[in-house]
Amino acid sequence: MPTFQENLERYADLLVRVGVNLQPGGKLQLNAPIDAADLARLIAKKAYEAGALVVDVRYSDPLLARATYEAASDAALDYFPAWGAEESLHKIEEGYAYLSLTGSDPDVLAGVDPTRIARSSKAYGLGMKRVADLMSASAVNWSVAGIATPGWARKVFPDLEVDEAVAKLWEAIFTVSRADVDDPVTAWREHTATLRRVVDHLNERRYDALHFTGTDTDLTVGLADNHIWAGGSEVAQTGIEAVPNIPTDEAFTAPHRDRVNGHVRATKPLSVRGTLVEDIRVRFENGRVVEATASRGQDTFVQLLDTDEGARHLGEIALVAASAPVARTGVLFYNTLFDENAASHIALGRAYSINVEGGLDAMAASGANDSLIHVDWMIGSADMNVDGIREDGTTEPVMRAGEWAF
Amino acid sequence: MPTFQENLERYADLLVRVGVNLQPGGKLQLNAPIDAADLARLIAKKAYEAGALVVDVRYSDPLLARATYEAASDAALDYFPAWGAEESLHKIEEGYAYLSLTGSDPDVLAGVDPTRIARSSKAYGLGMKRVADLMSASAVNWSVAGIATPGWARKVFPDLEVDEAVAKLWEAIFTVSRADVDDPVTAWREHTATLRRVVDHLNERRYDALHFTGTDTDLTVGLADNHIWAGGSEVAQTGIEAVPNIPTDEAFTAPHRDRVNGHVRATKPLSVRGTLVEDIRVRFENGRVVEATASRGQDTFVQLLDTDEGARHLGEIALVAASAPVARTGVLFYNTLFDENAASHIALGRAYSINVEGGLDAMAASGANDSLIHVDWMIGSADMNVDGIREDGTTEPVMRAGEWAF
Repeated sequence: MPTFQENLERYADLLVRVGVNLQPGGKLQLNAPIDAADLARLIAKKAYEAGALVVDVRYSDPLLARATYEAASDAALDYFPAWGAEESLHKIEEGYAYLSLTGSDPDVLAGVDPTRIARSSKAYGLGMKRVADLMSASAVNWSVAGIATPGWARKVFPDLEVDEAVAKLWEAIFTVSRADVDDPVTAWREHTATLRRVVDHLNERRYDALHFTGTDTDLTVGLADNHIWAGGSEVAQTGIEAVPNIPTDEAFTAPHRDRVNGHVRATKPLSVRGTLVEDIRVRFENGRVVEATASRGQDTFVQLLDTDEGARHLGEIALVAASAPVARTGVLFYNTLFDENAASHIALGRAYSINVEGGLDAMAASGANDSLIHVDWMIGSADMNVDGIREDGTTEPVMRAGEWAF
Repeated sequence: MPTFQENLERYADLLVRVGVNLQPGGKLQLNAPIDAADLARLIAKKAYEAGALVVDVRYSDPLLARATYEAASDAALDYFPAWGAEESLHKIEEGYAYLSLTGSDPDVLAGVDPTRIARSSKAYGLGMKRVADLMSASAVNWSVAGIATPGWARKVFPDLEVDEAVAKLWEAIFTVSRADVDDPVTAWREHTATLRRVVDHLNERRYDALHFTGTDTDLTVGLADNHIWAGGSEVAQTGIEAVPNIPTDEAFTAPHRDRVNGHVRATKPLSVRGTLVEDIRVRFENGRVVEATASRGQDTFVQLLDTDEGARHLGEIALVAASAPVARTGVLFYNTLFDENAASHIALGRAYSINVEGGLDAMAASGANDSLIHVDWMIGSADMNVDGIREDGTTEPVMRAGEWAF
């Protein structure tokens, strides 16, 4: 059995070679919370060994963000410098790959006034809109992966000592990321080929809408005109194939912003803007959220919906088998990157332009949604059925009891 | 007696209100090593309470730098992006204040091939030359202060347990930074007024050169034409008076790049580029270092001298009384910010343009030195005498046995 350090090395290597598929001479920006410094250094080492020309590590600090939300003036929360997106635009122009590590305490901002977080997030979102659009269009390779931190591990395994919780969380991350096998790179090649077959089938069927039924859920999601299903690996505009999420077990596409109707409940808690939101229930009419409740964090959720017009419409629908590796661990991660791969999910806000033929320029005409936000939440479960509705009104089973039905 | 937390709060407040003298609506960039996150958050809080519009915290990681020097290709070490200085130039244009915390293990890069560090430092220095020139001309307020980290504390107090060493190092920092008094802001106003009187005296005397004598030292340092002595606080081009170094007990000016002759030995070890250099002995002829030895770290020191033509010439001469607070602690900090305030010192490399009448444009004509580097090292001691040589060849005592003699 490999040691922890061996698994960590394999994991770092996987993120570099599969996650962003860094090429010799390639440039990498690595975003990491400060308590992920050990892994960040290891990734930098692996990237340089893979021939990187530069690894620019940007450390973030959720507790600093908390201090800012608590102490900054309203003017400071609204501030975003005119030149604030320039460096990112230079980097995208030059084909930098972006690797981001996620793993902060999912409740790190609990209790902070959500209106303060919302206004800061909005200023940032407006200032970085062009960058987000380019990322959503896969202008460059990017990938997001997990890092076990004490704050997060305590949340996931509250009954364990913190060291033990961190070790157990790492074990879960390695397993669902397929990093603890002998040859992770080959395992991922096989895995993305499997997802490719699902994606190809869905693209071939060209459904007009999907119909979701399950406990407290009866939702019809119209799909964008000329939508494209994607999943697993993605070929960026750089021509390089990489994997935007590790782990990933989803096939996803763009809904039509005005053709969503019915009601749905979340099947897992959602950590949004550093606050846990639980038991979300939502009703859509003609694409728009017209009712929204939550048993915890409702203010935060409603602030999110009020970010802009597009925040009340869907930008993504993703299908995940209930038997996917994350679901099999039985662990509730309180982190979207992981939990979204345990269950089918929807996202409020911006659609990905890779999910529409013609890309960014064709988004509006295809009915794909735009917004400053993109927030996924889980609606799938082992009792969910999904039917595909064809243009002529006939239906076909897509999922039965949470599993693929084709 | 104030608690540690009270002292830390006063210290953070001091750095914001005196160090960079942040104004309401002001913008701040805070540079901090990742193990200084607690203090960084506290400073951000104090800055927002003082009315900051933005506090942009940039975390650095010396162990990441070490991993980079070890694993990166030569091409990667030489890489600096064409747009790499743009953000700093925007910030200077907008009057951002810069506060930098220093406190890494002074030996963190020991054993790394110094030629690799040198080529990376040179690429960075070339890319950021314009920024360094603007900082040296006090285009904006900037300040450097200390932060006790475990790596540094272990070096300073090797016989103590690490927690105890950190506590003791903090105590020393608070003392020499005048942060542990009832009203640090007033204490600093009085202290900078005292330094102002020393500086005014030296400016009034207009010495042509200074002559240093002491154990193993007989050095004549010609001063730049139209040189200006500075010390304590500085009024930046923003019009705001602030204190570039906390602590600071020096009066300093620009030597003439070609009029330095004699020999000198360092009176303290020097941490340069993450490596300790000990027992430096140097001989100058017509301003240029023509002989240089060290009992430890000689390679690193010689690499430094070979950075560029100006690296073998002096860019600063600074006088410090041997009874200054840092010297009184009896602590050898292995950190220039502190040790340079225990002893008179010289710096190889770039002169500060604030030390020459006419500023940046007048540097070359005045004989002030230019280089990519600026590295201070200590030559003062309690047995050193300094004489001022006037244009007519007459001499006057400036320091006797390490103390002011006027």
